[in-house]
Amino acid sequence: MTVTHPLLDLAPLTAAHFASIERRVAALLSTEQDVVITQGEALLPLEGCIRSGARAGSTALNVVTGPYGQTFGNWLRDCGATVVDLEVPFHTAVTAAQVEQALAAHPEIDFVSLVHAEAATGNTNPVAEIGEVVRAHGALFYLDAVASIGAEPVLPDAWGVDMCIIGAQKAMGGPAGVSAVSVSARAWERFAANPAAPRRSYLSLLDWKERWIDGGRKALLHAPAQLEMLALEACVERIEAEGLDALMARHASAAAATRAGALALGGGLEPFVYEAKDAAPVATTLRVPAGVDASALVAKALAADPSLPLIAGGGALAGEMIRVNHYGVDATPGAVQSSLAALGAALGEAGRAVDLEGARRAVTEAWAV
Amino acid sequence: MTVTHPLLDLAPLTAAHFASIERRVAALLSTEQDVVITQGEALLPLEGCIRSGARAGSTALNVVTGPYGQTFGNWLRDCGATVVDLEVPFHTAVTAAQVEQALAAHPEIDFVSLVHAEAATGNTNPVAEIGEVVRAHGALFYLDAVASIGAEPVLPDAWGVDMCIIGAQKAMGGPAGVSAVSVSARAWERFAANPAAPRRSYLSLLDWKERWIDGGRKALLHAPAQLEMLALEACVERIEAEGLDALMARHASAAAATRAGALALGGGLEPFVYEAKDAAPVATTLRVPAGVDASALVAKALAADPSLPLIAGGGALAGEMIRVNHYGVDATPGAVQSSLAALGAALGEAGRAVDLEGARRAVTEAWAV
Repeated sequence: MTVTHPLLDLAPLTAAHFASIERRVAALLSTEQDVVITQGEALLPLEGCIRSGARAGSTALNVVTGPYGQTFGNWLRDCGATVVDLEVPFHTAVTAAQVEQALAAHPEIDFVSLVHAEAATGNTNPVAEIGEVVRAHGALFYLDAVASIGAEPVLPDAWGVDMCIIGAQKAMGGPAGVSAVSVSARAWERFAANPAAPRRSYLSLLDWKERWIDGGRKALLHAPAQLEMLALEACVERIEAEGLDALMARHASAAAATRAGALALGGGLEPFVYEAKDAAPVATTLRVPAGVDASALVAKALAADPSLPLIAGGGALAGEMIRVNHYGVDATPGAVQSSLAALGAALGEAGRAVDLEGARRAVTEAWAV
Repeated sequence: MTVTHPLLDLAPLTAAHFASIERRVAALLSTEQDVVITQGEALLPLEGCIRSGARAGSTALNVVTGPYGQTFGNWLRDCGATVVDLEVPFHTAVTAAQVEQALAAHPEIDFVSLVHAEAATGNTNPVAEIGEVVRAHGALFYLDAVASIGAEPVLPDAWGVDMCIIGAQKAMGGPAGVSAVSVSARAWERFAANPAAPRRSYLSLLDWKERWIDGGRKALLHAPAQLEMLALEACVERIEAEGLDALMARHASAAAATRAGALALGGGLEPFVYEAKDAAPVATTLRVPAGVDASALVAKALAADPSLPLIAGGGALAGEMIRVNHYGVDATPGAVQSSLAALGAALGEAGRAVDLEGARRAVTEAWAV
């Protein structure tokens, strides 16, 4: 009577199975901290950590190197915290010295929020060095590692990160509907001491601590998003099979190859992030020459092949920025070659001189693996 | 290099696809109200609606016919609302007259929360009649229809429900990681007028209204839980193929057959919900005879067949209540027959006189389809 379907009528996901997936995610982060897999997009733990860790009376240093930093600032203000925004141009990364200076100017800062890699702007920040500075100051350190996990090292314990939030949908090549966060002991203490921290709420991390972790991971708070959990497990299994180092090397190669290829292609394309060391391994952003509209160029390139991982920059950047999203299954020489070839053809049609063959060679040479 | 997996590397879910799934869910509810598919378990919209619609200064009538009513009362109090709890024994349903009386005693009530069917206690409430009373009073009407959708009619427009929350994981036989809510125009107005309503938050329904619905359902707020969305679509497709009426008839038959079979089985088993009209079509709760422990009896029955949809009551009811969860793929004569046979065998081993053959016949006769 009831027709089965591959996505329906699965056996229930047990608490033991759920816990085993958490352990494997913790291993990806090389962390001994508590890891909680959260049942929603990464915005859920990103928001949950700020609403738990920040409060009226807090002063937060909010590093803004892209649009997510702006979102975090809004949440921090919403919690009643005083926010010190440290904004750096989107074409670069923040430095540990800049963070140190801001902390010195505001000794009352007790919370630092940072985005590791920004897919939207294509930069990545030196978290290890920043972590040392934040640790010396004593503030709680909040890190959005959604776009870096799987693409470059993410080491909350070694770096002194107190809340490290990840999602599976970018470099991990996994599902979008679950996410995870590692929480340090001192972050839990701060959460517990915050009377406004979400409790008995879908946003609450303390609920998961008290009912799931402290209870020995025996009873789930509610029916988990089973399919997303199974997909997360499959994704982690695939990473274990490839090796996390190999996965990160693929992303590093994709970034280096895209950058080298774009420079060799010419036609006026330039890396949006000035220095290669500041460029994110998940996505390479490119600036189009004056007189060329980035959205139109991307549209033309996608008309030839809609599956290419190309997108114009968001908001105000839509006219001037192209993003090549070389993450997950697109962290391959083929995806990079095809993306640059399509951009080159579109630039050529627009009357720009491009070196398609040079770009092809540059990608091959720069691909280290 | 990258191994594909059935749950990974899917093409992105477009906004148009997302919107088409919303339309099909709206059709299941026969509603013209705005339907929002929420990216999490049903607790997400259940909580989101209360935090949006209730506030300091509100007075809420909270009907408690099971454990979820208690959860809602806590949320309402957390929002600063004054809460009038209307508790009825778990072996019965609330009546429209009781609701009318409570509203008359507290004319200031501006919010009414109700659970339609309670899987945990096995009762179901007469929402159509209650809706008339609530509408006459003018309060906002909040309904948890998670355990009723697919098993019995759920008609927010006809009943005057302002927030009707559903999940797919019970009678619909679908995924657990997405849920949906229909929101009336006056509920949106109340949300918008509430300065404490969640905004720029994973819990926010207003975010979905302003950025998704009012924008013509063109831009999603974040990457949706794609697998759960595809599973929801498959689940709705399957319901459309079977027919919603046929699906509801299966559940009604399962409830009637379980009740009749349990009575015929004897051995001291009795329906926990006194009257058949108050019994939920998703689950039949049974009271065990004095001297028998419900948890132990269920454990014995499950030892013979762990796949049976049997569970002991939660919390204080674990000793005295058995639940037969005949929903979704278990709304079949086979599941009901096997469940009662296993309970009968366990009761027989415990020295109780049972009529296995009588129970079998009663199930067959009571199965109307």
